[in-house]
Amino acid sequence: MNSLFWFIPLTSVIALATARFFFKQMIQYPRGSEKMKSIARHIRQGAMAYLQQQYKVVGIVFLIIACLLAYLCYGIKLQNKWLPFAFLSAGFFSSLAGFLGMRTATCASSRTAFAASQSLNDALQVAFRSGAVMGLVVVGLALLDYSIWFYVLHTFTNAPTGQQKLLAITNTMLTFGMGTSLQALFARVGGGIFTKAADVGADLVGKIEANIPEDDPRNPATIADNVGDNVGDVAGMGADLYESFYSSILAATALGAAAFFSHDITTQIKAALLPAMIGAVGTLLSILGIFSVRTHEEATMHDLLKALNRGVRYSAILIFVLSFLLLYILHIPNYVGIWGSVVVGLITGEIIGKSSEYFTSQAYKPTQRIAQHASTSAATGVISGIGIGMISTVIPVSAVAIGSILAFGFASEFNPKAISMGLFGISVAAVGMLSTLGITLATDAYGPIADNAGGNAEMSKLSSEVRRRTDTLDALGNTTAATGKGFAIGSAALTALALMASYVEGIRICMLQSGYHALSCGHHLVNTAQASLIDFMHLYEVHLMNPDVLIGLFIGSMMAFLFCGLTINAVGRAAASMVNEVRRQFREIAGILEGKTKPDYARCVTISTRAAQREMCIPACSAIIVPIVIGYFLGVPGVLGLLSGSLSTGFVLAIFMANSGGAWDNAKKYIEEGAYGGKGSPAHKSAIVGDTIGDPFKDTSGPSLNILIKLMTMIAIVTVGITVGKTCVH
Amino acid sequence: MNSLFWFIPLTSVIALATARFFFKQMIQYPRGSEKMKSIARHIRQGAMAYLQQQYKVVGIVFLIIACLLAYLCYGIKLQNKWLPFAFLSAGFFSSLAGFLGMRTATCASSRTAFAASQSLNDALQVAFRSGAVMGLVVVGLALLDYSIWFYVLHTFTNAPTGQQKLLAITNTMLTFGMGTSLQALFARVGGGIFTKAADVGADLVGKIEANIPEDDPRNPATIADNVGDNVGDVAGMGADLYESFYSSILAATALGAAAFFSHDITTQIKAALLPAMIGAVGTLLSILGIFSVRTHEEATMHDLLKALNRGVRYSAILIFVLSFLLLYILHIPNYVGIWGSVVVGLITGEIIGKSSEYFTSQAYKPTQRIAQHASTSAATGVISGIGIGMISTVIPVSAVAIGSILAFGFASEFNPKAISMGLFGISVAAVGMLSTLGITLATDAYGPIADNAGGNAEMSKLSSEVRRRTDTLDALGNTTAATGKGFAIGSAALTALALMASYVEGIRICMLQSGYHALSCGHHLVNTAQASLIDFMHLYEVHLMNPDVLIGLFIGSMMAFLFCGLTINAVGRAAASMVNEVRRQFREIAGILEGKTKPDYARCVTISTRAAQREMCIPACSAIIVPIVIGYFLGVPGVLGLLSGSLSTGFVLAIFMANSGGAWDNAKKYIEEGAYGGKGSPAHKSAIVGDTIGDPFKDTSGPSLNILIKLMTMIAIVTVGITVGKTCVH
Repeated sequence: MNSLFWFIPLTSVIALATARFFFKQMIQYPRGSEKMKSIARHIRQGAMAYLQQQYKVVGIVFLIIACLLAYLCYGIKLQNKWLPFAFLSAGFFSSLAGFLGMRTATCASSRTAFAASQSLNDALQVAFRSGAVMGLVVVGLALLDYSIWFYVLHTFTNAPTGQQKLLAITNTMLTFGMGTSLQALFARVGGGIFTKAADVGADLVGKIEANIPEDDPRNPATIADNVGDNVGDVAGMGADLYESFYSSILAATALGAAAFFSHDITTQIKAALLPAMIGAVGTLLSILGIFSVRTHEEATMHDLLKALNRGVRYSAILIFVLSFLLLYILHIPNYVGIWGSVVVGLITGEIIGKSSEYFTSQAYKPTQRIAQHASTSAATGVISGIGIGMISTVIPVSAVAIGSILAFGFASEFNPKAISMGLFGISVAAVGMLSTLGITLATDAYGPIADNAGGNAEMSKLSSEVRRRTDTLDALGNTTAATGKGFAIGSAALTALALMASYVEGIRICMLQSGYHALSCGHHLVNTAQASLIDFMHLYEVHLMNPDVLIGLFIGSMMAFLFCGLTINAVGRAAASMVNEVRRQFREIAGILEGKTKPDYARCVTISTRAAQREMCIPACSAIIVPIVIGYFLGVPGVLGLLSGSLSTGFVLAIFMANSGGAWDNAKKYIEEGAYGGKGSPAHKSAIVGDTIGDPFKDTSGPSLNILIKLMTMIAIVTVGITVGKTCVH
Repeated sequence: MNSLFWFIPLTSVIALATARFFFKQMIQYPRGSEKMKSIARHIRQGAMAYLQQQYKVVGIVFLIIACLLAYLCYGIKLQNKWLPFAFLSAGFFSSLAGFLGMRTATCASSRTAFAASQSLNDALQVAFRSGAVMGLVVVGLALLDYSIWFYVLHTFTNAPTGQQKLLAITNTMLTFGMGTSLQALFARVGGGIFTKAADVGADLVGKIEANIPEDDPRNPATIADNVGDNVGDVAGMGADLYESFYSSILAATALGAAAFFSHDITTQIKAALLPAMIGAVGTLLSILGIFSVRTHEEATMHDLLKALNRGVRYSAILIFVLSFLLLYILHIPNYVGIWGSVVVGLITGEIIGKSSEYFTSQAYKPTQRIAQHASTSAATGVISGIGIGMISTVIPVSAVAIGSILAFGFASEFNPKAISMGLFGISVAAVGMLSTLGITLATDAYGPIADNAGGNAEMSKLSSEVRRRTDTLDALGNTTAATGKGFAIGSAALTALALMASYVEGIRICMLQSGYHALSCGHHLVNTAQASLIDFMHLYEVHLMNPDVLIGLFIGSMMAFLFCGLTINAVGRAAASMVNEVRRQFREIAGILEGKTKPDYARCVTISTRAAQREMCIPACSAIIVPIVIGYFLGVPGVLGLLSGSLSTGFVLAIFMANSGGAWDNAKKYIEEGAYGGKGSPAHKSAIVGDTIGDPFKDTSGPSLNILIKLMTMIAIVTVGITVGKTCVH
């Protein structure tokens, strides 16, 4: 094992230790009055109750799948024997990241509220450092899980040559990603349904019908709404980005080992470890960046933004330089070209982030135009949001398209036949994009903490100045959150492209295991071990005149829409039952609206919890079953068509939904800031309609799509044995 | 030339003569009072003014493109010399179909209103027979254009063998489809923007702000609204389905000639003429079906529906039998299998139609559930409509997927290597689906006529019984219109699949013309003239590991969203200027609302006209430019990726938009019929929001997508010379 390897677990430990340090620091901060503590306890209990329930359901699903995998591995021997355990461990680490992040967030809310009663800077420090706990836990645990399994497999795998051993290890590790993806899907979908059901329910009855302000303690759904911010925007997002970070590294690792298969073992191992090392360097830089976020006592909103941006920018510029240094030290062939791919990833991420900001921030024309159309009527506001969201797909898709070509080109030295190297370049670009996740996630995660602090301040009737400060932080968080979603989607597109190549590598391994040592390509035979990805494409006729490929494409595109439809409807149904429950409490429990009786908060939490558990199963199961069924009936061409279709459509659909949702949200905020009549005007009422429609767009369906795409690919990789068996060739 | 050929122009003449007979019959019907005549005149003038303006703009575009094509054909000799003329003639015939249909519709509205004052059956006869004029003109002109060009090319084409000659003829004819597609796109998008801008504008200010009923003469936008029904739902839909019918036949003709290339010339010519002959038989049956639509004097709504359905069903059952007879007479190889493909097309169309009906009719649960959610709030109603629309894509996509596999399988006798035969089967299925277009289009087109008659009745203050009768007819038309859209989308998916194969055939022809007589496939040479489609796929590396293909896919998916976004925003912008104009007239022209002064109808018509002309250009141009740019930069793999991506995403997106839009419309109608508080209730107001959002979904963006997909493919086929030149192989 290369000694450079130890750099990865070491970084992981540093990240986790720093997270622990921030947590300790936060936990020592005063929690505020009794009232504030009690509200925070309510929310923490609700969130933990939800997570317990969620993990119970997910645990059962995981155990069932682990048993099926055990059959796959031990019964029909189509996969590596470590798969079931790694699958469980991947799920466990991902859940742990979500759990720790959420525990921190729920502890931080009353403290941030209290800090906000001291100064804006105090509030920023508490909220941002708590967000940083989440960011560092996510990257730290991902690197830890990676290191442990790499070490274990390196110790226990046998193979004729070092190169073959590494290929086997990295391809086995790839299949571990399935656990992370599945857990992330459950967390995103479940959390998304929970939070949006509570949010829509609380708003529709509380704000509009009963005319009480947001986060008013008289609203029975208000605790559920705040719990939702934690389980959706913290735990859900954490699991989502854990998955993005982890699977991008796994895919790049496997492609690195494949691309450098014909080199000496040292070079190959360096290439394979490169992605994780880039992640590790980025993590160290994130820590530096987080420490650099400081402001003076009389900081303005502008100063805050500058402080945050400074942290993120420092990390980004340094990774630019240090990744070159890293590659220079490793000195693998064409290291300059590969560095080019890393840079392409960084720049593509930046472009996607800026594009999201342009299309969703009220500082720019598109969102302002939605607000203007909302002042005509609710319907025109919604139409305009959909139109702008659809148009907003052009820049990110073009950026990813051009980015992939460049990343492919740099890594392959513009040789179109060097497909493996080119695909490695694409996967490295995805890693580059996510390398400084530690700090970008910190700037994401502190938003919901500030939001919750605002809720706490409102419920415990702190001065309006406190609420104003937390709102400032929250608004800042909204902008950075849009960027985070852009990164998640952009990296998913690149990672999924890379994973498709890994699927083909999986076919090769499966064939070798089944004793097919030669492929009949056209009129001559090719050695299976030496066959290129193109040979496999020819062998299986994975071209665009094969009806199986085209039908796979159709089904793949449909899957993206079906998945969104199912999750959107789930939110609709759950919100409707929440609305009914809130109405029932107002009707049946006397004295709620006068503030004399406490509403039954727990029932609303239970309703959201149950709805989330019930509704998340069908979409998740369809993502598991469809690739297997298509593989069984349409073979390799059908599966690759399916994956390409769900990738291309899902990618575009995800950007559309995220941006439309974000733009409606901020168009409403723009009006609330005084445009077109301000709060309470007809324009505001119209904008609320758009905002409500956008809720499941941007927080449930849209962000789940990037996980769906990768999960389907992972399932295909794990079950590749079934597919190859069906389209058996000699 | 085979004597069977003459059956096609003969049928065309019969169809046109029958249309003329129905027109004469309608025109002799009394036009009602002076007031009714004057209103009808207003609308006719507005519609004709629009059409004049539209044809002027389209004419200029057509002339420019014809010049470019002339350069392509005569300058760099990359296409057949007849192309510019055929391009113009195709555009001309398509426009003529729209023009004649609209002239009939505008003449029929006051007559239908008058007939409705006599009896429901009279109104049905006048409206339905006028709709039939449109249906028969569309299929008649399409078959006429086909026959003329087939004859001309057959007379003037020279080739070494009969088989090569037919291949050249049919491939040249295919490129003619570009004119039809372009004209259809302009008609659909322009008409769609016009009608929805007027509709939304009239509703938002008239119905909601000024509280005056629909079609009230005091509303300045009311004439524009009625004009819009004609230019959008009649002329636009006519051009759209003309394009569907024509291009499905052209694609199948080309593939027939290619699939039977190695047979004797008689068999090949029979196969090539088969699609048009199926269309001709379907046309004759449609005429029979139209004559069979009769009811007795005291017909109820139920009887009417039965009468219409009887006509459609008769035609469908007879085509089932007669297409077998036709194939038996032609007796080409595997004629039973090919008949199987025709039947698959018929059944797939039926399934798509039924699925649309289920998801959009208020008689079923999905739409009722949207109404129920609308009773909670506007936002939940919209969310639910989007969710259900997305889920509704499952059945049509699965039907087309399974249908393609079966149609491919039957025609290729389940031999996966017989790709040409299989693709011919898919294209024949599309022709089968559209074969009875004559009558299905008649049942579509009479809806807007009845709608306009209702407007006329309202404005000329006829008794409410008349309005009730026209509403009955209109409601009936809504259900059949949903089916028509389903057919257009389903057939587009199949035709586009077939056209992609024609694109590859185009590459072959181009290569032969450029003197490339052998392809290097893998390690051996293949004769270009004899190379299979698969050989071309291998040669150009059109597989799913080629980044150019995948990037093409991304861009293709994005194009579908971009196009929708542009057209939706166009409607939004146009509607906003209409709203401002109507508000201005109410404000500045005294006495409008009291009915003392006539509003300035013409200005509203002008606003819609100008907006439509201005806004339709960017989406249409993007559809033309993108395939050329991608072809230039990414070559054949990029183009095929682009076409597959826009096809798969566009197909699913089109169904989603059509069904969401239809469901919102009918959810509103369901509430108007008395559910959840009926007209004027909060549920009704919420449902109007959904309905307004759905307007551009179902009548502008959704139905344009199927044309977009085919137009992009046609552009790729016409400009194939540029692409092949770039990726030149020896």
